[in-house]
Amino acid sequence: MSASRIGQMLPSRSNGVFSRDKVLTIDTMNPTVKNVEYAVRGPIVQRAIQIEKELREGVKKPFTEVIKANIGDAHAMGQQPITFFRQVLALCSYPELLNENMFPEDAKNRARRILQACGGGSVGAYSASQGIDCVRQDVARYIERRDGGVPCDPDNVYLTTGASDGIVTMLKLLVCGEGASRTGVMISIPQYPLYSAALAELGAVQVNYYLNEEKCWSMDLSELERSLAEARKHCNPKALCIINPGNPTGQVQSRQCIEDVIRFAAKERLFLMADEVYQDNVYAEGCQFHSFKKVLFELGPEYSDNVELASFHSTSKCYMGECGFRGGYMEVINMDPEVQAQLSKLVSVRLCPPVPGQALMDLVVNSPQPGEPSHTTFMKERTATLSLLAEKAKLTEQILNTVPGITCNPVQGAMYSFPNISLPEKSIKEAKALGQAPDMFYCMKLLEETGICLVPGSGFGQKDGTYHFRMTILPPTDKLKILLAKVKEFHQKFTQQYS
Amino acid sequence: MSASRIGQMLPSRSNGVFSRDKVLTIDTMNPTVKNVEYAVRGPIVQRAIQIEKELREGVKKPFTEVIKANIGDAHAMGQQPITFFRQVLALCSYPELLNENMFPEDAKNRARRILQACGGGSVGAYSASQGIDCVRQDVARYIERRDGGVPCDPDNVYLTTGASDGIVTMLKLLVCGEGASRTGVMISIPQYPLYSAALAELGAVQVNYYLNEEKCWSMDLSELERSLAEARKHCNPKALCIINPGNPTGQVQSRQCIEDVIRFAAKERLFLMADEVYQDNVYAEGCQFHSFKKVLFELGPEYSDNVELASFHSTSKCYMGECGFRGGYMEVINMDPEVQAQLSKLVSVRLCPPVPGQALMDLVVNSPQPGEPSHTTFMKERTATLSLLAEKAKLTEQILNTVPGITCNPVQGAMYSFPNISLPEKSIKEAKALGQAPDMFYCMKLLEETGICLVPGSGFGQKDGTYHFRMTILPPTDKLKILLAKVKEFHQKFTQQYS
Repeated sequence: MSASRIGQMLPSRSNGVFSRDKVLTIDTMNPTVKNVEYAVRGPIVQRAIQIEKELREGVKKPFTEVIKANIGDAHAMGQQPITFFRQVLALCSYPELLNENMFPEDAKNRARRILQACGGGSVGAYSASQGIDCVRQDVARYIERRDGGVPCDPDNVYLTTGASDGIVTMLKLLVCGEGASRTGVMISIPQYPLYSAALAELGAVQVNYYLNEEKCWSMDLSELERSLAEARKHCNPKALCIINPGNPTGQVQSRQCIEDVIRFAAKERLFLMADEVYQDNVYAEGCQFHSFKKVLFELGPEYSDNVELASFHSTSKCYMGECGFRGGYMEVINMDPEVQAQLSKLVSVRLCPPVPGQALMDLVVNSPQPGEPSHTTFMKERTATLSLLAEKAKLTEQILNTVPGITCNPVQGAMYSFPNISLPEKSIKEAKALGQAPDMFYCMKLLEETGICLVPGSGFGQKDGTYHFRMTILPPTDKLKILLAKVKEFHQKFTQQYS
Repeated sequence: MSASRIGQMLPSRSNGVFSRDKVLTIDTMNPTVKNVEYAVRGPIVQRAIQIEKELREGVKKPFTEVIKANIGDAHAMGQQPITFFRQVLALCSYPELLNENMFPEDAKNRARRILQACGGGSVGAYSASQGIDCVRQDVARYIERRDGGVPCDPDNVYLTTGASDGIVTMLKLLVCGEGASRTGVMISIPQYPLYSAALAELGAVQVNYYLNEEKCWSMDLSELERSLAEARKHCNPKALCIINPGNPTGQVQSRQCIEDVIRFAAKERLFLMADEVYQDNVYAEGCQFHSFKKVLFELGPEYSDNVELASFHSTSKCYMGECGFRGGYMEVINMDPEVQAQLSKLVSVRLCPPVPGQALMDLVVNSPQPGEPSHTTFMKERTATLSLLAEKAKLTEQILNTVPGITCNPVQGAMYSFPNISLPEKSIKEAKALGQAPDMFYCMKLLEETGICLVPGSGFGQKDGTYHFRMTILPPTDKLKILLAKVKEFHQKFTQQYS
């Protein structure tokens, strides 16, 4: 061993205490982790939390509360959980409640069925790694109903820890290679930053295709072709990810567009990943959710027997908004059986997804039916939540479009608006001098001056020279109105200040 | 584009349907995933599930039920959940129950406190990625009590999705490099296969050190030195993992041994990872759990200011056995602040650990106190569970040691026995002819003939030429007795048959 090595190993005295170099430092740690970024919980949110603390400590601000519209977290914004779901979860947690008269029979029946499927009748037991059998069966029947009878094999359904877990797992299977043969994965720009973060961590090549803002964030075939041709020069593009309804962009892709994408994937031999967690969040007239699977099967066996597809869903969005339970599923279609065996092995290492989240996923796909005691209340709650979201989607679009310098596509679905903001040259220069993205500079100023927490467009990606922010439509209507009025006022002031 | 490439891309007709090469095949998939193995849910468990199905379908077998002792899944084996925990979880799930008289006041108070710390007062909201603030504070106070007052900063506590999640996250930070500078991670052999699986997936070098079976699976300093010196020839060993109490080996390391390991890690500049999920599972007289953190601080500032340590705990083991909720935490000590910022960023991508699991973790570290209405019942349930486990640990050791050819160390802690089994030469040859590990051959035969599901020692690693199996001590006493009697009978028959 060299003398310098021994030197490194021995503790050295400095400032009166023993100290030495750390084993794990920013220089010795995994470099792919350093490349990870996740704007939805990035620096602006850190600052928002700090400001909240300052407010509690009595620091004077030009506002009295922070309004967070940075994350699709419905319950945190006051959305109420579905009563039936929570009743069943309570019954599953503490089965002694099955002896009480306070719960409707259908809630008790669902709880009994889930408990019977659990080891030892307890949600505290591990489930099968792929998920509880009867839940996967219920998911399969749900998918069949949703897709007009297209068959779904429960063996192709994997329950997951939220949709994120399924997406990362699929990417993990796909990614390999070095240099020019490194796996490329096509993602939309703007994108949900889970994708860029996972690709960075896995060391894959992020292949950007741009959504067409002029056509309400639709997918353009020619853009997909451009992006792919470009990517093939330096990597091996293997997969194409779509988020529909869109995050952060709130569009709902047309059936024609989905068909085009499937034909493109078939022709170009791309594995399709369809992030469909907002499938019930469709508000705009004339818009409808089309699952990639359904369209795939409507295109006939040439496609439905061949195109590889993974589709993702979650308990976190739609009318449920149950993010905290981390429930979700993925369905894999046309997956090579040997690869699927590897997938099943891979998920077994993490033992199982959280069982309460699995139970919740079951309730989502197997909700109260007409004639069951909870049906009326369930439908009332579900409809009220979705109607309110539709109303707030409209409101957001309308008010933002009254602001000179802000242009906002209709929020057709999902939970987000992603308006284009014109920023004065002077503000762009000032931001760049600070080493900040211009829309980060804008959002940070907005936060400091108004207490409103949005995420800059640069965290999701956007065309060079354009600027955006993402805001959720989730705050309660009165707060949403305050938020929009404050954004309007701020934008005008900001534009003046830097003109 | 070359002609062959175009050829690959077009669908070709075979067997009357269109088919084409898959994008994702066993040859094109991520090779590191292929290297992953996880014995606890491996082929033998797959076969056990199949046999259960055959039994249900009326297939005649020399047994009427499969007894699973392959996985530390207490509730699946009939262990009852702690009433207080489940009451609070039900209250958190369905807060309307707070208005009922059926729950004790302390359960209601805990639920109110957790709900207040949740966004919108709902466990359906995302928490902070690091975990709910008040839960992390409770964890910190628990650690301080456990470690006799050694301070714990809640900012160093990260709530996790079971302990596995924390362990994989830490390894992810540590692993990097290629060739001779690839990160090496020292793990005990026998080991819990999460470690080997995670290292395979991350492309790190698994550096084996052997536990001393003759000295009740203790850690030998000379063996650590041998292993490290060996590893330094071909990789860059950066971390040392310890499981205490041991899985699969059931030992409890002495204070002296832990001190030796810490001094070794300090001298050799290794990051310590202490898997302490069985910290309440200590049965043998004279044995005591010593946390790595406590011993580290007792060694004085030369160590406590310098040695980097991550310690892991979980809701899945001990007297709780709440595996399905996927609750856990890790504490990091002396972590470089820049690295810790990276850790915080990394966990934010997955949004948050399941909130019901966080709530459960809170209850574990903040259980009913003397004077609170639930205290008596809680203590009775906790003690009963731990006493029963202690009894079954003793029973397992005693009966196994009556079998000629089986030698079993005392089950000092955790939930497992890992006996050494003598296998006749002829059986070893037959296994090898089948391409099976000899103890896999043994366990598979045991399963087919008796319905008992154990995991072969080869799934955990063992000294060449030695054979073992891991069995949990979790089945109810009557079933455990049947299981042990059947193993005894089988082992004698097997030995005869192959002699």
